[in-house]
Amino acid sequence: MEVVARSHQDAIICSSPSAVLLLTGYWPVIGASVVVFTADGEVHVVLPEDEVDLAGRTSGASLIPYQPSTLVALTSPIEALANPLRLLLAKLGLGKAAIGIEVDEGMQPFSYASCVHFRSSLADLLQQLAPEAHYESCDAALEQMEARKTAKELESIRRASDIAAAGFEHAAETIQVGRREAEVAAAVQAAFQASTKAQGVERSYGFFFCMSGPNTATASAAYARTRQRQIEAGDLVMIHANTCADGYWTDITRTYVAGVAPSDRQAAMRSAIFEARKAALEAIGAGVPACDVDRAARDVMRAHSFGEAFKHSTGHGVGFAAANANALPRIHPHSPDVLEGGMTFNVEPAAYFDGYGGMRHCDVVTVTSEGATVFTDF
Amino acid sequence: MEVVARSHQDAIICSSPSAVLLLTGYWPVIGASVVVFTADGEVHVVLPEDEVDLAGRTSGASLIPYQPSTLVALTSPIEALANPLRLLLAKLGLGKAAIGIEVDEGMQPFSYASCVHFRSSLADLLQQLAPEAHYESCDAALEQMEARKTAKELESIRRASDIAAAGFEHAAETIQVGRREAEVAAAVQAAFQASTKAQGVERSYGFFFCMSGPNTATASAAYARTRQRQIEAGDLVMIHANTCADGYWTDITRTYVAGVAPSDRQAAMRSAIFEARKAALEAIGAGVPACDVDRAARDVMRAHSFGEAFKHSTGHGVGFAAANANALPRIHPHSPDVLEGGMTFNVEPAAYFDGYGGMRHCDVVTVTSEGATVFTDF
Repeated sequence: MEVVARSHQDAIICSSPSAVLLLTGYWPVIGASVVVFTADGEVHVVLPEDEVDLAGRTSGASLIPYQPSTLVALTSPIEALANPLRLLLAKLGLGKAAIGIEVDEGMQPFSYASCVHFRSSLADLLQQLAPEAHYESCDAALEQMEARKTAKELESIRRASDIAAAGFEHAAETIQVGRREAEVAAAVQAAFQASTKAQGVERSYGFFFCMSGPNTATASAAYARTRQRQIEAGDLVMIHANTCADGYWTDITRTYVAGVAPSDRQAAMRSAIFEARKAALEAIGAGVPACDVDRAARDVMRAHSFGEAFKHSTGHGVGFAAANANALPRIHPHSPDVLEGGMTFNVEPAAYFDGYGGMRHCDVVTVTSEGATVFTDF
Repeated sequence: MEVVARSHQDAIICSSPSAVLLLTGYWPVIGASVVVFTADGEVHVVLPEDEVDLAGRTSGASLIPYQPSTLVALTSPIEALANPLRLLLAKLGLGKAAIGIEVDEGMQPFSYASCVHFRSSLADLLQQLAPEAHYESCDAALEQMEARKTAKELESIRRASDIAAAGFEHAAETIQVGRREAEVAAAVQAAFQASTKAQGVERSYGFFFCMSGPNTATASAAYARTRQRQIEAGDLVMIHANTCADGYWTDITRTYVAGVAPSDRQAAMRSAIFEARKAALEAIGAGVPACDVDRAARDVMRAHSFGEAFKHSTGHGVGFAAANANALPRIHPHSPDVLEGGMTFNVEPAAYFDGYGGMRHCDVVTVTSEGATVFTDF
């Protein structure tokens, strides 16, 4: 109800899987589910019939199944859900309501190998079903609500972090001179995926990437990429992962040195990064401007002459999107965000040198009354 | 240019990764790339700076980099690309053009752990940058163009199928009584991911799922799901995979019996499914109505008393989306589609019994002048 109150609307109608998860506790699989959330606190989801069982186990919302496709007729999801949605809008008396919908760009994490996106078609359908209703963006309200995690959401992110550890625990032994990045990523991912730590999680997914040597320098990009490169002695080797438990995501990176003891340069990078991490963690607290946390880390990196090499912000909101630099709070030099209890983000001090390599240590942390709790303390 | 000719528009402006791939050969990673494709045959892509190297290796399009976020300012992709896109539209003289954009719902496969979706924001930006242009949907033209694969696209789908074999080759030995579905999926996925068959592919991804016993009955759903269930002797065990090589996807399923020889019931299911597969493959050819291929398979299943158990259509287009029941050609009882050379789809005869289990054999095939070529002949 908070989201509706924030947006000053009579109802919110959303379809992106992370928004449906936020509003209902149910994480859609193929993205063809539509939630209608009213200011009275009614929550209804029009969803594919084959997701009803999953939804019922995680959500108390009223579930209205439809069949996206049948052998009797060729339909697309939007065609198939039009009638149940029409009946629902009528039942809820939303014909002339102020309705919040998703309009702005968003970052959507993986929910299945292939996922429905309604683009403009859901807004067009609503316009057609309830032409006298008034539609406006609810994106800002959703963004705010996503930023401050509830106790249940924090528990799920902690769970996703714990399962991720099952992969990272195998990283050091798996990284061996002569192995290809693809082999290392496969082994770490398999350790994660086979783990019994995922017991009780309906859907546990993770993406583990391995980058080595000069390839680690490219890890400053908005994405990671595993290649077929063979690891050499003395290489920096980075394992980056985004893992999730039932829709709640982590963002974790660890960096290793292959085969030999770290060189002086690598040791200097490591000590700067860990000092920056410590400074950032100590700066975190409710009421603290997010830019101060960035500054705490960045000042340390600069003092160690790694200012230029620390190419990105210190962090960004984590939980609903695997990796989204614009998720609140943005731990960025120019961030206007102020930390609040329950806000959850990554802290990722790093140094990258083109042609040589990069090192990053990325943790998931949450703001508590005492300061910061690290979920990825492994 | 075919797509522009088909749509009778002066230009097409798209951002979904599969459309950018179709039009340029470059498969965007985080989904924040916009292609402008003109009727004169000019192809320009406004793309994140950190994807320029990747794009340059696979596409001859003119590349216009932008920085989605920097340390100097907090911006979102749509804000950051507005100016380069404005300059490009002016340079191309598209101020009053008829421009095709993506409007309808679509099925977007995984391109990264988290992916930008512009929703209505790209259309809104275009409206603002070129208010006198005329915008209409180019979805149908793209859908048609995606359906008939070029020689290069077919080669990529064959490549993705070959890499998938690296996983399936390990399936039979990996499926053992007492193992959990999650362990089996992890092992098969790791074999795929570590394979040297992916040499030369920039981005090779795959999702392998394992379902066993009664869980295989739920595989008739629009999605697969691996659980923690322990495999028992005599269980049907299904391995389902969607794999991709640089944006070109496969859709493959194999079913095994755990630990013992197939029961009479399982043997009957298997022989019906393979007879249906053979009938479907024999029916395939250029000029053949897609519904005839469905009927060929369905008649066999009915003759074996598995008509009711064959709950879904015989197939659907494959290549640009991992799994999209609405991709052309739809091998469905009511499909209006007619097969053409280069059309590529799955053939997936199956039988599902609630509480007992299901069996499916899903191949990727393409239409040739001689009939059908199976890419997944393993």
